[in-house]
Amino acid sequence: MEKKISTAVIRRLPRYYRYLNDLLKVDIKRISSQELSERMGITASQIRQDLNCFGGFGQQGYGYNVEVLYKEIGKILGIDKRFTTIIIGAGNMGNALANYENFKKRGFDLIGIFDVSPDKVGKEIKGIKIMHIDSLSDFCAKNRVDIAILTVPAQDISEVAEKIASLGVKGIWNFSPQDLKLSHDVVVENVHLSDSLMVLGYKIAQRG
Amino acid sequence: MEKKISTAVIRRLPRYYRYLNDLLKVDIKRISSQELSERMGITASQIRQDLNCFGGFGQQGYGYNVEVLYKEIGKILGIDKRFTTIIIGAGNMGNALANYENFKKRGFDLIGIFDVSPDKVGKEIKGIKIMHIDSLSDFCAKNRVDIAILTVPAQDISEVAEKIASLGVKGIWNFSPQDLKLSHDVVVENVHLSDSLMVLGYKIAQRG
Repeated sequence: MEKKISTAVIRRLPRYYRYLNDLLKVDIKRISSQELSERMGITASQIRQDLNCFGGFGQQGYGYNVEVLYKEIGKILGIDKRFTTIIIGAGNMGNALANYENFKKRGFDLIGIFDVSPDKVGKEIKGIKIMHIDSLSDFCAKNRVDIAILTVPAQDISEVAEKIASLGVKGIWNFSPQDLKLSHDVVVENVHLSDSLMVLGYKIAQRG
Repeated sequence: MEKKISTAVIRRLPRYYRYLNDLLKVDIKRISSQELSERMGITASQIRQDLNCFGGFGQQGYGYNVEVLYKEIGKILGIDKRFTTIIIGAGNMGNALANYENFKKRGFDLIGIFDVSPDKVGKEIKGIKIMHIDSLSDFCAKNRVDIAILTVPAQDISEVAEKIASLGVKGIWNFSPQDLKLSHDVVVENVHLSDSLMVLGYKIAQRG
């Protein structure tokens, strides 16, 4: 496998993975790039180009073996790996994510939830007791934490992110509207919900 | 302005818009594609290529006028337009989105929230009373609804989406893990939170 796959391709892989999973569920065993293109709304040439990045699993005149492709993409995405995860910020978004059904299935094990509010600390979400953020250092010393999900208010984000990065977390999933820039070597994935909403607004406006 | 801008470029515009806004806040009046590249983590050639799609607002040796570029991108994104919006599903995610601070600022006015649960109907979020989903048709007959945000459980999604599409809504912002395919002519923007999480997992795994 090539090490250098562009981020744009990587970002499309989870989508392929989902669609292939849907095909497997209805017992479809092989598919052409053309058919996959129609289902996914991506051009067939884009699909062939994307999948060629990792050696290409299609055969001329046959198409793709759905199960093989599904497994290969899963392997590339590291779907067999498990990541320990904590949520910082037990508000509505933190709650929603803690209850997100695909979470565990995709390899992310929630092991801790933190907040500052006395109303929340001590309560449970999904059987996990909410801890005070002051106990974060202790928790990270005792447990390996791969990923921290940040759903704290925008004004607190930099401080919390620097703190959590200094504790050896490998990745941050950031839900604040601010892109994070950290001094520590941590992988950051910024989720900008309003970007997606703006794209929707754009498309509606285009339709007139 | 060209009508045919690729979706990939459109998806990057909100990001340019945010970064330019940050520059304006600290009174930076012009910027080269190189500097913008360093801040945003996009190559300078990608930036030039993207911004060329709408005539390009940069000048050789000067760079981009931040305010002009900010306003132009805002215009393309239709940032001056307002969209009436309802949320269907008043669970944690619905609550989180109703409270999302960038919502109103980006032109989206929340005018209704719907749910089926007797525990929720009648309560208020952000001063908006939660209505029973049975009153949706009535509500849409009396109010123009541009966008419906769907945060209902995955098993209910197709039914609710077809229903809302039949009522004349122009766009759907879908938070269920299932991509929506509708018989009606409605713009759909699917948000797949776990895709972003999988990309984070991939990047962490690559770091070893």
